[in-house]
Amino acid sequence: MPRQIEFYFDFISPYGWFAAEQIGDFARRFDREVSWRPILLGITVLKAMGLPPLMSTPLKKDYIAADVARCARYWGLRLSPPTGVQLSPLAAARIILWVSSERPDCTEQLTLALYRRYWADGVDISTPDAVADVACALGFSRADILSVLANPQIKDRLAKSVDQAIGRGIFGSPFFIVDGEAFWGTDRLPMMAEWLVRGGW
Amino acid sequence: MPRQIEFYFDFISPYGWFAAEQIGDFARRFDREVSWRPILLGITVLKAMGLPPLMSTPLKKDYIAADVARCARYWGLRLSPPTGVQLSPLAAARIILWVSSERPDCTEQLTLALYRRYWADGVDISTPDAVADVACALGFSRADILSVLANPQIKDRLAKSVDQAIGRGIFGSPFFIVDGEAFWGTDRLPMMAEWLVRGGW
Repeated sequence: MPRQIEFYFDFISPYGWFAAEQIGDFARRFDREVSWRPILLGITVLKAMGLPPLMSTPLKKDYIAADVARCARYWGLRLSPPTGVQLSPLAAARIILWVSSERPDCTEQLTLALYRRYWADGVDISTPDAVADVACALGFSRADILSVLANPQIKDRLAKSVDQAIGRGIFGSPFFIVDGEAFWGTDRLPMMAEWLVRGGW
Repeated sequence: MPRQIEFYFDFISPYGWFAAEQIGDFARRFDREVSWRPILLGITVLKAMGLPPLMSTPLKKDYIAADVARCARYWGLRLSPPTGVQLSPLAAARIILWVSSERPDCTEQLTLALYRRYWADGVDISTPDAVADVACALGFSRADILSVLANPQIKDRLAKSVDQAIGRGIFGSPFFIVDGEAFWGTDRLPMMAEWLVRGGW
């Protein structure tokens, strides 16, 4: 089994999307397997850090808004999220947690489809129905998806998974761990590549 | 006169140091001139943002400590700041503000000497005497330096300069503005280079 690149991301995070678009090819280049790990920044992680949401932080929020648009253009991605929507990433995160254990070969495709639906197509993905729409287009059964999303065990698994991530020091999206080494941010992918080539320094 | 790269940095910021070590050559490569602009993150900017100091932020502080060490090794810089010192960057920032207008050709050299004194040699540079030691080694007169650092107009100029930076949306170290475009972080230098080559995108 190939060694892993742990990839932590939140659907509310456009930088998480930019990384999701790249990490599959990145991992294949190094004969690695991506472990897709949804987290909940706004709901859980920032509380643990005592920080306000990024887009409520004076000065930084204006830079981030401009930078996200610039990065999207740089990577050739259409950026057109719905306006006036406060995305809840819970349903999307839960389904990715489930699919990563039940249908792991579909995880990359479904993660990208959910990210693109929201950030490129401008469709809210907050509800189980909206998540099921995306999954059905990839061949999943709507009944299966809705049943998973109604399952309290899945809700519990996500909460525990996010707590574990916090316990391991994960605090951002995207966040990568490879061979025990942590990298935060899409713009650290080149350094992570060099780390893998050189085996650290 | 070559066009400028505005370079904002705080002496308390090791990432500011890493950028300072690179920005001179970076600018020369693009026939640009660096405008060296000391700011005061801890004292002023974070208050404007309502944020705690980086190294008091749970989760992030552990990552940053490891990342700073990793970046120093990556760039071949000895990282050995004094232990148990709470650096005040005021004197260093004031002298750089002064030298950048009075002896601009010395600004890069003095900025690097101050950064290295603290971050590589492990000597506190909080006091006017400590800053004068560094400047004297580069040929400045101790009396001139101490006189500048006792001058209330210089203190006032720095305060105004930092306020102006905040007014322009600068919130981190390093922070760059080139042709009106803002870039935050040492790891954005490659993107900034591409921006200059392509004239934006």
